[in-house]
Amino acid sequence: MYSRFMSTSERLIESTRELLWERGYVGTSPKAILERAGAGQGSMYHHFKGKPDLALAAIRRTADEMRATAEGVLDGPGTPYERIEAYLTRERDVLRGCPIGRLTMDPEVIASDELREPVDETIDRIRERIAHLVEEGKEQGQFGAGLDGEAIAATVVATVQGGYVLARASGSPTAFDAGVRGLLSLLAPRPTD
Amino acid sequence: MYSRFMSTSERLIESTRELLWERGYVGTSPKAILERAGAGQGSMYHHFKGKPDLALAAIRRTADEMRATAEGVLDGPGTPYERIEAYLTRERDVLRGCPIGRLTMDPEVIASDELREPVDETIDRIRERIAHLVEEGKEQGQFGAGLDGEAIAATVVATVQGGYVLARASGSPTAFDAGVRGLLSLLAPRPTD
Repeated sequence: MYSRFMSTSERLIESTRELLWERGYVGTSPKAILERAGAGQGSMYHHFKGKPDLALAAIRRTADEMRATAEGVLDGPGTPYERIEAYLTRERDVLRGCPIGRLTMDPEVIASDELREPVDETIDRIRERIAHLVEEGKEQGQFGAGLDGEAIAATVVATVQGGYVLARASGSPTAFDAGVRGLLSLLAPRPTD
Repeated sequence: MYSRFMSTSERLIESTRELLWERGYVGTSPKAILERAGAGQGSMYHHFKGKPDLALAAIRRTADEMRATAEGVLDGPGTPYERIEAYLTRERDVLRGCPIGRLTMDPEVIASDELREPVDETIDRIRERIAHLVEEGKEQGQFGAGLDGEAIAATVVATVQGGYVLARASGSPTAFDAGVRGLLSLLAPRPTD
């Protein structure tokens, strides 16, 4: 439940963000949103055009937060390898999964260009940032010249997204950590390179 | 729609498999299952104890198929690297995602030990098989001695599962292929190793 000092539209957005993370778009009913927000029947239609409009506001906010967190680490201190390592190992509530990645399994999000757009853009931006880091690392001789920045960036982001799947399947974050450790061991600068 | 020569319980299981893949457990109503199966109101309770029981039969069948397909490739011909490559690049309907992996995003599957069990077991078996292949490859000098088979196996399976997320976010299989290509370039036996 939210503070009574928070506006109704704020409470609706925050409730929707939580429910989308827990249950996805298909699994989130307007009724559940209103209940969690402690808001009255008509309030969703007073502030938003309906569930898709409210969900879009919620997804955009979650996407902005996720991008800011990722960029904070990727633009942080250290060598390219260390920054990719920091991105892969940053503290996560692994068993909750990714609030953006999980939306890709939602048929109604994928069927809507509008709802899919912030999901696609966020993942794309993070991939781009990592691809640049790989290219930087190649210039500095930290990564082999044969690596393709864009491909490695896709592998890095996929390992995180797939790591959530492994962790949730097994009910333990261990599998996420193993996937990250495996990737880092493959990426690590080698004296022979 | 299914052949009228298929039994009602078969039609129920096959319809449930499809709906779970498309919409997940939370998004699949008994009504939708009956409609797709062309089955009457009472037939689900005649053949199954209810939605969880029917879903369990459907998930088990999908899990068995997925494991058989994966093992067919991983136990096939070729060096350990080639068999991992064959697993990563085998033909997939990438934009549909993984019918087993997607269930991990389903709160009701994850909350039920019974429904989660076949999901966990399938992913676990595939990881184990890949971990053995990595160890074999190390013995043959194909992979660096420093690699941890279990960690690499988690990375391989995570890249596939996360590759679906990237592909569905962007609406194109290209991102899946990029992630796989990146991982293969990191795993490839190098003359300097």
